[in-house]
Amino acid sequence: MPDNHIAVLRQMIEKGLIDIPLPKNPTKLYAPMQYILALGGKRIRPILTLLGAELFGAEAKLALPQALAVEVFHNFTLVHDDIMDRADVRRNTPTVHKKWDDNVAILSGDGMMVLAYQLLADAKPEHLPTLFKIFSATALEVCEGQQYDMDLAHAEEVFMPQYIEMIRLKTAVLLTAAMQIGAKVAGANKADLDQIKVFTENIGLAFQIRDDYLDAFGSQADFGKKIGGDIIEGKRTWLTVRALEKANSAQHKALLDAYADSDLDKRVKTVLELYKALNVEQDAQVAIEALSSTAMNGLEQVDGNESVKGELETLVHYLMGRTK
Amino acid sequence: MPDNHIAVLRQMIEKGLIDIPLPKNPTKLYAPMQYILALGGKRIRPILTLLGAELFGAEAKLALPQALAVEVFHNFTLVHDDIMDRADVRRNTPTVHKKWDDNVAILSGDGMMVLAYQLLADAKPEHLPTLFKIFSATALEVCEGQQYDMDLAHAEEVFMPQYIEMIRLKTAVLLTAAMQIGAKVAGANKADLDQIKVFTENIGLAFQIRDDYLDAFGSQADFGKKIGGDIIEGKRTWLTVRALEKANSAQHKALLDAYADSDLDKRVKTVLELYKALNVEQDAQVAIEALSSTAMNGLEQVDGNESVKGELETLVHYLMGRTK
Repeated sequence: MPDNHIAVLRQMIEKGLIDIPLPKNPTKLYAPMQYILALGGKRIRPILTLLGAELFGAEAKLALPQALAVEVFHNFTLVHDDIMDRADVRRNTPTVHKKWDDNVAILSGDGMMVLAYQLLADAKPEHLPTLFKIFSATALEVCEGQQYDMDLAHAEEVFMPQYIEMIRLKTAVLLTAAMQIGAKVAGANKADLDQIKVFTENIGLAFQIRDDYLDAFGSQADFGKKIGGDIIEGKRTWLTVRALEKANSAQHKALLDAYADSDLDKRVKTVLELYKALNVEQDAQVAIEALSSTAMNGLEQVDGNESVKGELETLVHYLMGRTK
Repeated sequence: MPDNHIAVLRQMIEKGLIDIPLPKNPTKLYAPMQYILALGGKRIRPILTLLGAELFGAEAKLALPQALAVEVFHNFTLVHDDIMDRADVRRNTPTVHKKWDDNVAILSGDGMMVLAYQLLADAKPEHLPTLFKIFSATALEVCEGQQYDMDLAHAEEVFMPQYIEMIRLKTAVLLTAAMQIGAKVAGANKADLDQIKVFTENIGLAFQIRDDYLDAFGSQADFGKKIGGDIIEGKRTWLTVRALEKANSAQHKALLDAYADSDLDKRVKTVLELYKALNVEQDAQVAIEALSSTAMNGLEQVDGNESVKGELETLVHYLMGRTK
């Protein structure tokens, strides 16, 4: 983690997750919740919630239940998405449906969504209408994003606006909600909440495109996953969509043919060559840069604590893999 | 439906369900919600919510969003339970995972839970903490009930207290929450809410045992399902648990052997004979009667509108298949 303060917040979240009072029985309902919540991760979303509270003058711990709500909700989506995507491994560990079975993953995921709402409700009553409104609207958008993701996986042709809308719903909106919820707990007004969105939504898009970028052009050490994984899975990413958008008809056919190639090493090699020929690596860098810069301008406009804005900037730099 | 007033409430619920503003896209997320919500059913839970509001002097329509929340939540549990139970038909119609697929059923079920919370939140802000507390605690209990149900399906031996606790969690608690939520919207106090529980929880248990009873001893016309379905599925019911509790060792073995018999007609015949020999039919009637009578005494104690209590009594008599 980038600096001391954010490390402290992360610690607070890890402890908070462990301290959630879960019943012991039925074991198959509650043990998977503990399992997935203990798997770790960068905890970006709950950190954004805590920083959102600090940004508007509250102590981080005031928004801890809501930060945990956001993280529990995020983990619920991982459990259910992993069933739908038939993903057997997450963070080098078996996914819930793999370690137990699909039924256990469905039901414990359901329970986690309820748990998230319970945590969210641990706030001043006057804040509840807004908190619930943000949280539920976002939760539905995340479901929409997952459905669009599955739809696009089987689509003949995917256009860039569709792809951007899908990753906005699947990834960016939850970053926005996470931070808005923290801000609301600290008493931020509607204008403040709107202003946050410019920062979080563009950062969310930038992160997702960077993830797509690293999968093709990163080093395995940076990325923590095998390079070319998206290509091997046949997944549409920003790069594929951009490449198809720029390709002439021969390149278009070559790219689709490569995706149909069952020789996976050859598939990865051909797709990367086409990416190179079409210069999508640079396009991705330009897009990430543009989104980050829009996000940072948005952050500047936010009428909040300047030192917390500095922390957010540090966090983003860290997540973007840059040294400050 | 038993009388005019309850028919009016049911109408209000049917219209309310149709009027829920659902987006059109993504189709695979929202179309299944409309599909399952249009399948009908007795709408007992939302009727209890509306009667709960009337019981404490409010107009039914004040609690309509919450009644819809309860019904949407209940339908969410049906969608996910049907995946887990591999049930292909509900109300003579394909279940969501059968008509679409498991992924669609998982995700649209998730979306329905969020939708339920959105509907629930459409209340006076000062009521939200209690409404959310009741709703979330109950939702988790329903998940626990479903897990216990799956656990007991594979258990060597099931004892009556376990079975009762399972049906209490899976069925009864949601009836309690449904009515308490309506009462709260009407401004009922804590003592009122507690008093409701005696009525709804015992009625919930009585309904479930009656359902088990009808599966073995009902007429197909009354029950609307094929008689012996539980036995064919090898499902533990109140009757099986009671029979095993009373059986001598020869009968115990005979019952378990019958359940292992792949000749289904013979299985049904043998199990019903053992039920008869052990007199569990009468035991079930006694249990249902005792629970109903406890419920009705509970209802009498409730400090609410007497004419609404009369409606509730009519509703229960109707559901118990008796003429008043």
